[in-house]
Amino acid sequence: PVRMKRRLLLVSNSTVHGGGYLEHCQQQIKDFFGPQVKRILFVPYALHNQDSYTKTARDKLKTLGYEVDSVHEAADPVEAVRQAEGIFIGGGNTFRLLKALYDHNLVTEIKNRVLQDGVPYMGSSAGSNVATVSINTTNDMPIVYPPTFSAIGLVPFNINPHYLDPDPNSKHMGETREQRILQYHEEPDTPSVLGLREGSMLLVEGNQATLLGSTKARLFQRGKPTTEHDPGSDLSFLLTDAQ
Amino acid sequence: PVRMKRRLLLVSNSTVHGGGYLEHCQQQIKDFFGPQVKRILFVPYALHNQDSYTKTARDKLKTLGYEVDSVHEAADPVEAVRQAEGIFIGGGNTFRLLKALYDHNLVTEIKNRVLQDGVPYMGSSAGSNVATVSINTTNDMPIVYPPTFSAIGLVPFNINPHYLDPDPNSKHMGETREQRILQYHEEPDTPSVLGLREGSMLLVEGNQATLLGSTKARLFQRGKPTTEHDPGSDLSFLLTDAQ
Ligand SMILES: [Ca+2]
Ligand SMILES: [Ca+2]
Repeated sequence: PVRMKRRLLLVSNSTVHGGGYLEHCQQQIKDFFGPQVKRILFVPYALHNQDSYTKTARDKLKTLGYEVDSVHEAADPVEAVRQAEGIFIGGGNTFRLLKALYDHNLVTEIKNRVLQDGVPYMGSSAGSNVATVSINTTNDMPIVYPPTFSAIGLVPFNINPHYLDPDPNSKHMGETREQRILQYHEEPDTPSVLGLREGSMLLVEGNQATLLGSTKARLFQRGKPTTEHDPGSDLSFLLTDAQ
Repeated sequence: PVRMKRRLLLVSNSTVHGGGYLEHCQQQIKDFFGPQVKRILFVPYALHNQDSYTKTARDKLKTLGYEVDSVHEAADPVEAVRQAEGIFIGGGNTFRLLKALYDHNLVTEIKNRVLQDGVPYMGSSAGSNVATVSINTTNDMPIVYPPTFSAIGLVPFNINPHYLDPDPNSKHMGETREQRILQYHEEPDTPSVLGLREGSMLLVEGNQATLLGSTKARLFQRGKPTTEHDPGSDLSFLLTDAQ
């Protein structure tokens, strides 16, 4: 396979129950961006109040040693991506986020920066969804209509963030998360889906992928039995196999 | 307001916990289609296995005195809609359903039959979503990309089927249903959303709308406090007010 500079930290969720914003993954964030990166470009498009969202991210990342510029404060968002040393796309509503990325012509720009220039990319929740092939496996409500469900495509599979096991005591009749993903795989030519439970995250460095965090991940591959993967697992096959 | 022939039965969900398919609403179905209708046109597009889905619907509706023709068995789906005495669109995946309705050129056809010719329309879950302004407030996973989120538009508001109250004991950090609908209303010009809990349904006859079933409904109107409505409530204002 081609040697890729790609570096990604794809987090299931920004806040675990009882913890603070990005608290459960702060060590991984420091390890990921390292001491070289000084400023991180934040993308707050997934939430309505982008000023307050930026303040939350800015305050937290400052405690880890990083300055934050927000793309929504930039005069020219494309130029901001071109100048970025590191990118962090936060969670919220995935449809709103993807639509805004297209509206601002950032999809191809971010892809080029990450895959060609090796700019480190961190995503959380919706920000992890948009890093993949498509947003077909988001959990979010489709509150706006993006021009396509195809996303940035930094990896050849999809992610389901906040992956949730069925509640055996529930009397609710909506589809379980597993049923929803299996319905996705009833459609032809659909890529694998990595279900990242809250507390887990995927580190991608070149053609190496490793599951980090405190929870297992559940992998759905079309036409194959689903599998469970412990923290620390090598998931590099997701990057090289035809998905 | 214009005198409308419209007759709709929009059901939150086809099966309540511990019950059989359409069991909780079978009396309302008989009252709705009545003795005049002999054959109901079933639309099974929301599920992958349309043959087995049709058998389920056919077997159940036969016990209520109705023969079922499925649109997926028709040589010409548009002609099948033109001939229909009654229409029932079943639940499953709302994105798949809406895409198939557009693929088969049925959206306008169904709208005309219901609004102009007074053909009774029953929807369940996804089949209720597609009866409204748009599918922006479905709970489903976006497994396929429809050409638009605009739907049949038989009423001037949206529905959230399987409406779910927050679970105070949950440690899961995904958005609650209420948070998701409030995010929808952060977007401009968004219509009201009627949250139909499992067990409830909305009967629309002309310009009269009545909540039926065993559970309350929660109504979200952009810029107003949310309200709760008991079974039996008159919700006709949803049909006449600008939403
Ligand atoms: Ca979200
Ligand atoms: Ca559904």
